[in-house]
Amino acid sequence: MDIAKRNPNNPLMRPSDLKPAIPGMEITCLLNPGVFRMNGKTWLVLRVAERPVQQDGIISFPVYDKEGKIKVLSFDKNDPQLDATDPRVIVFNGQYYLTTMSYLRLVCSDDDVHFTEDPAYQPIFGEGFQESFGIEDCRVATMDDGYYLTFTEVSPVAVGVGLISTKDFKTIKREGMIFPPHNKDCALFQEKIGDLYYAFHRPSSPELGGNYIWVAESPDRIHWGRHKCIATTRPGKWDSARVGAGAAPIKTSEGWLEIYHGANKENRYCLGALLLDLNDPTKVLARSEEPIMEPIAEYEQTGFFGNVVFTNGFYLGEDGDTINVFYGASDEVICNAKFSIKEILATLKK
Amino acid sequence: MDIAKRNPNNPLMRPSDLKPAIPGMEITCLLNPGVFRMNGKTWLVLRVAERPVQQDGIISFPVYDKEGKIKVLSFDKNDPQLDATDPRVIVFNGQYYLTTMSYLRLVCSDDDVHFTEDPAYQPIFGEGFQESFGIEDCRVATMDDGYYLTFTEVSPVAVGVGLISTKDFKTIKREGMIFPPHNKDCALFQEKIGDLYYAFHRPSSPELGGNYIWVAESPDRIHWGRHKCIATTRPGKWDSARVGAGAAPIKTSEGWLEIYHGANKENRYCLGALLLDLNDPTKVLARSEEPIMEPIAEYEQTGFFGNVVFTNGFYLGEDGDTINVFYGASDEVICNAKFSIKEILATLKK
Repeated sequence: MDIAKRNPNNPLMRPSDLKPAIPGMEITCLLNPGVFRMNGKTWLVLRVAERPVQQDGIISFPVYDKEGKIKVLSFDKNDPQLDATDPRVIVFNGQYYLTTMSYLRLVCSDDDVHFTEDPAYQPIFGEGFQESFGIEDCRVATMDDGYYLTFTEVSPVAVGVGLISTKDFKTIKREGMIFPPHNKDCALFQEKIGDLYYAFHRPSSPELGGNYIWVAESPDRIHWGRHKCIATTRPGKWDSARVGAGAAPIKTSEGWLEIYHGANKENRYCLGALLLDLNDPTKVLARSEEPIMEPIAEYEQTGFFGNVVFTNGFYLGEDGDTINVFYGASDEVICNAKFSIKEILATLKK
Repeated sequence: MDIAKRNPNNPLMRPSDLKPAIPGMEITCLLNPGVFRMNGKTWLVLRVAERPVQQDGIISFPVYDKEGKIKVLSFDKNDPQLDATDPRVIVFNGQYYLTTMSYLRLVCSDDDVHFTEDPAYQPIFGEGFQESFGIEDCRVATMDDGYYLTFTEVSPVAVGVGLISTKDFKTIKREGMIFPPHNKDCALFQEKIGDLYYAFHRPSSPELGGNYIWVAESPDRIHWGRHKCIATTRPGKWDSARVGAGAAPIKTSEGWLEIYHGANKENRYCLGALLLDLNDPTKVLARSEEPIMEPIAEYEQTGFFGNVVFTNGFYLGEDGDTINVFYGASDEVICNAKFSIKEILATLKK
């Protein structure tokens, strides 16, 4: 049952609402924002995906070269070595590439509907070889000592999870790759449990294993261990092909409540919930049998990659019950919806 | 050029030299030993792979059930849902299984040729769901505060790296999974660099990335971060399909010397060397163009899985130049060979 209360102003942002940050490119998609509150405003850390204006018969996209400069790679669409059946990824002669280059960009709002850029806050671009295909899908954990950003680092050698810490989003500290490949969908818990930090992450495996949600612990948020699998895909269900954490879990009296995404083999992305033991977040107390949100609005069904609702950011309303979720729809536009914690917990009790 | 000096007594150990440890099973393979010195003897931590005596027309193998007890799964060889083309792995209806169950077993020797068991030292079996398909390929790092064992943990949800610490191999401490899936071939550096521990590991990725060697750092050997890729596969070469670290690197005046394995698409496993900067082991100073050891002896070419030399254990001779390597041949027998550090370094200078 879809229990999301969609914002009537959806979509809130489209690619045409921003100017490209990379000279010569166009913005193809706005995706999956991280969310935080600062200075009385709501801030989104958008994933912005850019590429050159496409020419007939040619697929072209940007990458960073060894000197950290943007260069454009181009392939003839008719080349027999090219597989371009997925709009997000191409394969040429066995090597995978992304069709767009993603980076992170901040926008803010007083009313959660109209978002604008503040020139005091610069985009965050990938840096170094292990981010040479870009950085994606940033989660922002708001913690007592600052903001901690976890995001996907993409390069020819890996898809892994990077960490950035910042107190003000003006100066940032890059902490390197914290989860080795293949990994994404990392969300930090916003407080310690005992003496340790915790995080969800989503390794993907060839052969044994799959696209499952794991929990790990850390003394410092940079080094991680004691990895445990907490949620696998479920054959025949809406989350049969892949699952991954959304943003930080919410501490409720019943347990840690996590909104996660699940997709089936047709790449239809929905949202569901997990409830975890407060003292031991590797213990799953309950899990959604049916999605709590599905791609049913027109803007969730058609776009760059249709039939997708994907969230990795929210802030908690002052009533203590409203989850103000921001989400990417169809890998192209930015939307907002509200959930009630009570309503989600009620679905988990059925 | 093959510069290994093979022991004329090879193979030193065969499956028939030990009795099965699991009731009702036979030993199918002895594989890839970790190596350490203790009480004036050479000790091997063998990977022992067992399965039931196979019946005509049926493939059967052991796994641990939820209560931690051994149970046997059986499949009809003619079942159209079964893919049994690889002797090590079978696929049934999309789920992967191992054809044998591995665990670790200690043997020791005074002369490096005749190895026997000491009943005071018990086998180390997998424990818990994440080791329910067994544990494999143990590296032993000899450090100033004890022995640290890194090994592959296999289960229906993952292939990852586990850690065990021990001071005497009589009492062991299980530290959980230190590298999440898909990961194996983890070798700890035997001393800190600055304030941090280091390790090689080998994530495997679907799509972007591959089977490459990475280095990570840790404050405590349990939690790991700042992952960097240091060696990829090389198209057209002997290590075109997969590479992975052997045992701990050896500190030489020229840098950290690491013997690694590489395989091509025909699964021919050879050994090569990497030389890394002493202060920054993510910097590769040199790498073997050609293997330093290839499967050329008869016992390296035929067996359970032929054309394999694979090492994850050695000890350093008192002359400071001799690397006394123990290795698995054809995934079935245990062998020994000596290398000279000087000779390996000379091949890296060409």
